Amino acid sequence: MPHIALPENQPGIRGAMAFRPETARPLNDLVEVLLHAPNSLSAGERELIATYVSYLNDCHFCQSIHGAIAAAHLDGDEELVRRVKADFQYADISEKLKALLVIAGKVQRGGRHVTAEDVTHARSQGATDVEIHDVVLIAAAFCMFNRYVDGLATVQPRDEDMYRERGKMVAREGYVSVSKTYLPAEPVER
Amino acid sequence: MPHIALPENQPGIRGAMAFRPETARPLNDLVEVLLHAPNSLSAGERELIATYVSYLNDCHFCQSIHGAIAAAHLDGDEELVRRVKADFQYADISEKLKALLVIAGKVQRGGRHVTAEDVTHARSQGATDVEIHDVVLIAAAFCMFNRYVDGLATVQPRDEDMYRERGKMVAREGYVSVSKTYLPAEPVER
Repeated sequence: MPHIALPENQPGIRGAMAFRPETARPLNDLVEVLLHAPNSLSAGERELIATYVSYLNDCHFCQSIHGAIAAAHLDGDEELVRRVKADFQYADISEKLKALLVIAGKVQRGGRHVTAEDVTHARSQGATDVEIHDVVLIAAAFCMFNRYVDGLATVQPRDEDMYRERGKMVAREGYVSVSKTYLPAEPVER
Repeated sequence: MPHIALPENQPGIRGAMAFRPETARPLNDLVEVLLHAPNSLSAGERELIATYVSYLNDCHFCQSIHGAIAAAHLDGDEELVRRVKADFQYADISEKLKALLVIAGKVQRGGRHVTAEDVTHARSQGATDVEIHDVVLIAAAFCMFNRYVDGLATVQPRDEDMYRERGKMVAREGYVSVSKTYLPAEPVER
């Protein structure tokens, strides 16, 4: 049972966002830029990074939904998503993405674990400064999202098909667009 | 030295934000709502929570600047800020804020450390659901900001007066307003 009175029909972060639309808007804007907007890293690669960090933080809702979004971007390859979580060094992904996942895993433990050698190695595999920036921020952001979802004890369904269907929709439409289905309509006050 | 080519004249998170304005905007919007916008928790209380979490994550830049902003909101009481970081249970703050700091400290370790008892106790001290929500998200957000600042190895000056001056300005003007001094002007693309 959630620690506070969240809307009952919205699982995971959606309940928390519907409860507090004022913070939901910048959170959705952030994840839209980080994971869905055009980027030299594909949306599938970025969702794999988000999924991996959520797995390290053991957040069921986040690793399930972002794993499903990743799979939707990767022609439905759920086995690859599982492999990246469990043992990415042997997964069928680029050496560049492996180097970026090493950085993401270190950020999950704490920012200062990232070394100059980690960054040099990622760069030697073709990573740009913007990509390195974005990986650090994606990993950091999921240390927020995971704690937000678990810290409120949100409802986290075990129904994999729910995540699968939702994952396809978010992969197609993006976070800000999909958020309109559960956030109250109101004028943007910026 | 920062891991990537950040603007040299902007310390801490400001260098990272100036490097990537697309993500800086939602990050500033988020912290504005969480820490500066009107709230039943005072800005000083919310900045103390941000400072405490940044202290637990051992992020020099964040605990210094948010500690300075907290002190600016609290009539310059830097001793109280130090006390809250080191030993908040004996600090001269309300029992409600102590109960909320317990929750924040648990979120810092991981969202599932927060128990129903922690929340019941905070509620018995007068905390509302929105306040509990906001504390969980503030603590979670600083687990992001701290990792972002440290994960890029940003420049983190040791000059306390720099933080003190900046703290007064942010306390007065807020995050979004102050961010205009280091973010490039460009049309908002929402």
